[in-house]
Amino acid sequence: MQYHLDGFQPGDPDLSPPAPPGPADVDVAIIGAGPAGLTLAAQLCKIGGLSVRLFERKPGPLQVGQADGIACRSMEMFEAFGIAERVAREAYQVSETAFWRPGPGGLARADRIDDVEDDLSHMPHLILNQARVHDFYLDLMGKSALRLGPDYNRALSAMTRHDSGTHPVELTFDCLDSGGTQRLRARYVVGCDGARSAVRGLMGLALQGDGARQLWGVMDVLALTDFPDIRLKCAVQSAEQGSLLIIPREGGYMVRLYIELDALAPGERAADRQVSAELLAQKAQAILAPYTLDVRQVAWFSAYEIGQRLCPRFDDATPSRAPRIFIAGDACHTHSPKAGQGMNVSMADSFNLGWKLAAVVRGEASEALLRSYAEERHAKARELIDFDRDMARLFAEKPEGAEGARRFQAYFQKYGRYTAGVETRYEPSLIVGQGLHQGLASGLRVGMRFHSAAVIRLADARPLQLGSVLAADGRWRLLAFAPRGDTGQGGALAALCADLAALQRRYLPQEGADIDARIDLRAVFQAPHRSLDLGAMPPLLLPRKGRFGLVDYEKIFCADPAPGRDIFDLRGIDRDRGALLLIRPDHHVAEVAPLSGAAGLAALLDRVLLRPDMH
Amino acid sequence: MQYHLDGFQPGDPDLSPPAPPGPADVDVAIIGAGPAGLTLAAQLCKIGGLSVRLFERKPGPLQVGQADGIACRSMEMFEAFGIAERVAREAYQVSETAFWRPGPGGLARADRIDDVEDDLSHMPHLILNQARVHDFYLDLMGKSALRLGPDYNRALSAMTRHDSGTHPVELTFDCLDSGGTQRLRARYVVGCDGARSAVRGLMGLALQGDGARQLWGVMDVLALTDFPDIRLKCAVQSAEQGSLLIIPREGGYMVRLYIELDALAPGERAADRQVSAELLAQKAQAILAPYTLDVRQVAWFSAYEIGQRLCPRFDDATPSRAPRIFIAGDACHTHSPKAGQGMNVSMADSFNLGWKLAAVVRGEASEALLRSYAEERHAKARELIDFDRDMARLFAEKPEGAEGARRFQAYFQKYGRYTAGVETRYEPSLIVGQGLHQGLASGLRVGMRFHSAAVIRLADARPLQLGSVLAADGRWRLLAFAPRGDTGQGGALAALCADLAALQRRYLPQEGADIDARIDLRAVFQAPHRSLDLGAMPPLLLPRKGRFGLVDYEKIFCADPAPGRDIFDLRGIDRDRGALLLIRPDHHVAEVAPLSGAAGLAALLDRVLLRPDMH
Repeated sequence: MQYHLDGFQPGDPDLSPPAPPGPADVDVAIIGAGPAGLTLAAQLCKIGGLSVRLFERKPGPLQVGQADGIACRSMEMFEAFGIAERVAREAYQVSETAFWRPGPGGLARADRIDDVEDDLSHMPHLILNQARVHDFYLDLMGKSALRLGPDYNRALSAMTRHDSGTHPVELTFDCLDSGGTQRLRARYVVGCDGARSAVRGLMGLALQGDGARQLWGVMDVLALTDFPDIRLKCAVQSAEQGSLLIIPREGGYMVRLYIELDALAPGERAADRQVSAELLAQKAQAILAPYTLDVRQVAWFSAYEIGQRLCPRFDDATPSRAPRIFIAGDACHTHSPKAGQGMNVSMADSFNLGWKLAAVVRGEASEALLRSYAEERHAKARELIDFDRDMARLFAEKPEGAEGARRFQAYFQKYGRYTAGVETRYEPSLIVGQGLHQGLASGLRVGMRFHSAAVIRLADARPLQLGSVLAADGRWRLLAFAPRGDTGQGGALAALCADLAALQRRYLPQEGADIDARIDLRAVFQAPHRSLDLGAMPPLLLPRKGRFGLVDYEKIFCADPAPGRDIFDLRGIDRDRGALLLIRPDHHVAEVAPLSGAAGLAALLDRVLLRPDMH
Repeated sequence: MQYHLDGFQPGDPDLSPPAPPGPADVDVAIIGAGPAGLTLAAQLCKIGGLSVRLFERKPGPLQVGQADGIACRSMEMFEAFGIAERVAREAYQVSETAFWRPGPGGLARADRIDDVEDDLSHMPHLILNQARVHDFYLDLMGKSALRLGPDYNRALSAMTRHDSGTHPVELTFDCLDSGGTQRLRARYVVGCDGARSAVRGLMGLALQGDGARQLWGVMDVLALTDFPDIRLKCAVQSAEQGSLLIIPREGGYMVRLYIELDALAPGERAADRQVSAELLAQKAQAILAPYTLDVRQVAWFSAYEIGQRLCPRFDDATPSRAPRIFIAGDACHTHSPKAGQGMNVSMADSFNLGWKLAAVVRGEASEALLRSYAEERHAKARELIDFDRDMARLFAEKPEGAEGARRFQAYFQKYGRYTAGVETRYEPSLIVGQGLHQGLASGLRVGMRFHSAAVIRLADARPLQLGSVLAADGRWRLLAFAPRGDTGQGGALAALCADLAALQRRYLPQEGADIDARIDLRAVFQAPHRSLDLGAMPPLLLPRKGRFGLVDYEKIFCADPAPGRDIFDLRGIDRDRGALLLIRPDHHVAEVAPLSGAAGLAALLDRVLLRPDMH
């Protein structure tokens, strides 16, 4: 992390000086402080320069239960927010998954596999109480210049979009603590208020689709058992008693159990069954037999019906009117929790939206950018729903003749990449190029998240992940991979720098702004880092910044020469021609270009970014 | 980290329930909230079960300056305290060191070397403002059951040791804020109050030794330069202008410079010179010429004379009287800061003392244990003084004929292990065995810190460092390395378990206490983790703990089969016979024994640990 640029400041480098209080009317009003709402709020806090309020109907922060799976991709995002270390320290790490099926005398372990395939991500797959993820987000929001915290006890009761005015959306909240109402106007509203979203209802939208009528129970327990894989993620399919999914939890003792219950009758709701913790424990014992399960404490439990449901629209745009109101997360899509997608996909929704909203509010991008949120995320929600339906069906299948079970396991393995969150690919659009030069970096797919690899930073010889530079700061990034033999002196990269400087300057907010204020340029060389001369690098790669004009030494990297770690090899980067990548603020590759292709990237950016001289 | 053992608790797992307020008189009074005092306070907070006060004459927490080097060994200790991730995230990481000497046209880089040799430690060498280390310690102390924070503005003015009473040391403080005085009585007092220690003075002791009369300046700056290695740790020896040491600092922009100044005249003090920031900047520019150095902001500066001085005694023990008053850190020894040893050695002092004090106060160990602090640390301080004297002389030598410079560099490299803090070796004593069976684990030297290596945890297949289990909780540890072919079933390890159980029970505080409350047993197998059956392991390795009798699944590990990572190979552990290691609470290896040697280890422990039936 970089700090002290504008002078030494003692204390916590994450603590920003507070911004002056904003106006009563806000740029962005977020409804709901769950994973989607907090990711959005955190993103806006990190970018700053706009006013935000976050409303939550609950009386305070979440304490227990709900989601717990943190996919590799979400950890990459947490790294961008600077909270990955804290999550990792407390979490359970999923290393392997075991599959149990009926065997001689009861159950037998049919297989155990690596949970995350090699080089899928530089981040692990973790399990941690959702409430702790909330805590880390709340902490960073509280330290940001906005000093943002949720307004609790606020239930949205009315929402009107006016036809004019700078803040056209009027919101009314019932104050659940004091009993009165609160009104405010916002430029944009985002409903992150869950499956029973008030925002969605007030937009006149509804989730569509049917539940599979299969009832499941979930419980977090402290238990005694002689089942040997209780600290591994396990899918257990019994002969007669149904299925169980075991997710070991953080702290070394707690475990989450997903337990198959009977199908619901037509018209029956999960709540009608009055599922108790005792019932769930009995059922889990029956599935695990002949192994014992002695539940000593239930930290949390719930019952739910699997329902794959999707909202047909994620915003209030019309062909003639840009969107002002959005929904994200469970407000858009519901599905079963067992694949651990709920929290992760919800966070991915608002990580897609946050930088777009900030750019438009700050006058840096055209309103057209906002339409891409629903386009991109609705398609992904559709994929999720389809995936979840298949998964749920396979999971509930009786493993007759073991064929069904094998099919389930094969599916489980195949979709490991999907559930890790790294398969998400956005289609060519306003902000995703056609990928005509994909061959220059075959492992960094246009539309997909930038896949990190190890590099060595030139100035301080520090080994690190290139992906760690992708801070959640709303900036676009240019990654220039130098061709073979390029040392930065008189080579292709140096020649390119004039073009790249123009591209960086094109969108600068004002004269004298740091050259990387909007577009952050980094270069990666093939040569060993000790063979390169920092002093001979193009000045653009050693930019002078801040009030003292200090040099930023963190723009230049070299491939890691250790076996199996060279980023050019790992990501299929053309060694002879190099490559130039444009990365979106949400880490997705916008385009791959040749080193001579800066003009093409400028054309892509011009479609959405506003140039100050055009304001 | 493990938590939820006695039931699910929402929120921050580092936040302990508060202990009831303690009495006015305390078990341990710590004077001075620098690195030594805070390490001691943090250690006592982590162990708990005793009353502590921490007094500091400054009006509040440190903000700027002073030490910044964090040796690998200190990071291992920070890991034990649970703060390593936070330190690493903010710090500069030292990967390489460059050496510059006079060359054609001015200066030339003579060499650059890896700063930390391979497999020296699983932790990096870092640079971070000492004030941030203080912050992390204060944070963990504030979250501990003791909720301990320093009493600021308290200057010790009197100290009397009475001959009797449970709290024989009487302390008087001047209250620098309110103007009055404060009195309290303590069972033990530790002076961590720096080079001008009031505790040392009131003990009638003084530092002894002469300064080398060489004046140095130090400054933290934001600067512009064309010197290419400004982000590397550099030793620069100019032809005529003296020497400079460059230490890049956290945040990417700041740098610390150590600058050689003129020798002091006899009787002259550093303060007499009235060294200014301007003077230091000019001198640094002259040494770096022909490279430029344009200092834009000085965050902190100071001037000091190198003086290797040592206090002849570190406690007030007499042959007939166990110690009650101790000194640690700069109160015991002063030396030049350039080798980055000051903060590290001070922390090592009190990490040696903390667990001993806690054990005696809690009635778990005999007073004799307390004598080992001065014995062990005085010897290490003597080594430090000798090292520093050599280092300072070599550093200041004019590099005539380049021979002196080469000698300096060779010394620098040779002592990389020393400055990393991993060479510390305590002599055989009450708590360090003779090492007669050292050959069973040739890479885990008796008297030295346990040298970690990677392992796989059996129950959850998680790869981790075995050293990460050595929490700073005051417990001794037994590490049993199984012989070849041992699967835990009917082998040597299972046979040993009866002996080990007896050894663990021997010192338990009361009936029903967790079996690992005083001695934590872990086992490491040679077999691949997927080949072992957890369910067939000896029950002692799956102990039941806490109010629910839950199983602790984190006792069993396997060697990591990846090339170059097998702990048996890396640490020279006898594959045929295995080995049994006893590790002190401060991570030092107390003894290596054969798997049949539990009785010998019990004899060693009996020398210091009290058995409850003997109380």
